[in-house]
Amino acid sequence: MEILRTVEELRKWSRKARRRAGAHASNAVGLVPTMGALHAGHASLIRAAVQSCSHAAVSIFVNPTQFGPSEDYERYPRTFVADCELAAAGGAEAVFAPSVEEIYPEGAATFVDVKGLSNRLDGASRPGHFRGVATVVTKLLVAAESDKAFFGQKDAAQVAVLRRMVRDLRLGTEVVVCPIVREADGLALSSRNAYLSKEERKQALTLSRAVRRVEALVKHGERRAEVLIAAARVTFAVEPAVRVDYIELVDWATLAPVETAAPGALFAVAAFLGETRLIDNTILG
Amino acid sequence: MEILRTVEELRKWSRKARRRAGAHASNAVGLVPTMGALHAGHASLIRAAVQSCSHAAVSIFVNPTQFGPSEDYERYPRTFVADCELAAAGGAEAVFAPSVEEIYPEGAATFVDVKGLSNRLDGASRPGHFRGVATVVTKLLVAAESDKAFFGQKDAAQVAVLRRMVRDLRLGTEVVVCPIVREADGLALSSRNAYLSKEERKQALTLSRAVRRVEALVKHGERRAEVLIAAARVTFAVEPAVRVDYIELVDWATLAPVETAAPGALFAVAAFLGETRLIDNTILG
Repeated sequence: MEILRTVEELRKWSRKARRRAGAHASNAVGLVPTMGALHAGHASLIRAAVQSCSHAAVSIFVNPTQFGPSEDYERYPRTFVADCELAAAGGAEAVFAPSVEEIYPEGAATFVDVKGLSNRLDGASRPGHFRGVATVVTKLLVAAESDKAFFGQKDAAQVAVLRRMVRDLRLGTEVVVCPIVREADGLALSSRNAYLSKEERKQALTLSRAVRRVEALVKHGERRAEVLIAAARVTFAVEPAVRVDYIELVDWATLAPVETAAPGALFAVAAFLGETRLIDNTILG
Repeated sequence: MEILRTVEELRKWSRKARRRAGAHASNAVGLVPTMGALHAGHASLIRAAVQSCSHAAVSIFVNPTQFGPSEDYERYPRTFVADCELAAAGGAEAVFAPSVEEIYPEGAATFVDVKGLSNRLDGASRPGHFRGVATVVTKLLVAAESDKAFFGQKDAAQVAVLRRMVRDLRLGTEVVVCPIVREADGLALSSRNAYLSKEERKQALTLSRAVRRVEALVKHGERRAEVLIAAARVTFAVEPAVRVDYIELVDWATLAPVETAAPGALFAVAAFLGETRLIDNTILG
């Protein structure tokens, strides 16, 4: 497996991959953009990329512009050697691991903004977060000239922002969304789970409990947003150590709140356990 | 010469061109982004593209997002057949002429912003203009996967914005700037010159006169911004029908005003003749 450090190396790798795949291959190059600290959720993305594309690469870049000033950029887990092992084991042919200066040259002043969507859900709680995400993913997808890019449904609001962005900027990449991977007890996998104390780890199950509660209600025919959200609030109320950031039922394409859970609606929660902010969600059937 | 209407067609054309140019060609694909109404200035860009790249395309797209609500989007000259003849005569292999819906899909909400530079010179007079330019040029360069893109020095502030943007977004395109092409009497070529009445056409020479006046002063050793700008103001003062928009001496990279005309500084003017806004500039030696 190759380690690529510059955008130029990534672009060369992609063009070579495309040549090897043949002129008429439609899924020559797949990219899995990550911030590293890879877990089984990322592994499922890599597996999907390797299965559906002739050549797959994983990018590992902890993107400073998507972290707020008081957030965890500095202490975000960095596990590069293990990440490379996981990427190679999954069949990735390359890891793109650039420096911050490679992605943000001195004096960098250019940002990609997705109006409207960027200010909803996580974007409402984390001003500038989705601007940072959109900016870095534009750079990665453009450099990789990928046919498909793979993201986890766990970051459902991010998926909505990136789908809109990829369509609007005509990036020529298909956004592929893979299901949330969970621990046996239901906790959605996240690199930030590593921050949790033993006590917080138990309390963190409140998020997936709320998600399952809402799924069960919808299965039994409940569709009213206010009822579903109230049920989730009750689930959180029994664990007061968990501080709710948002509980929302929205249209997955626009992230605008909906009154009724039509099929495909996104139910999403975010909550703090101490300093650690976790998210979870479900796409309602 | 091919006429391409969709982003997908342009991307396919570019990839085919790159294959034909050979795996190791560094200047396989050149793009000349234009708004049509092509004149000899554009012809010089096409010539440069054909000379330095194996395959060259011209894009023709009157970009709505770079026009203000009271500007001339609707009446901007559209001369598609003549444009295609000029492009073909210049050796372009393809013209990319998309619809507005192709470049801005329904619900498009994504914009590229170059902070700081976008609010200077023309960006100060035309709020949102450079955001529109940066957004559309990102889409064009990404779709064309070009090695070089060709722009006229006449739009000097645009060049500064796009150079910054291309570097920041790591687009893999070199921005090539070609000299201003002028009429015999000095008027810088512009598609908007077509708007001028006979009287305004004469008055329009004030811009190039001011530019030449400043060049002459610099040649004789004058470097002080206040003196150069005052001299330009005097030139405009004798033609009161011409309404000055700006007269500026700036660093060409940052568009920030400078006190002294160091080599490479940009002296730029913009002025209205009736409803028609023209610009001119010089890079000081």
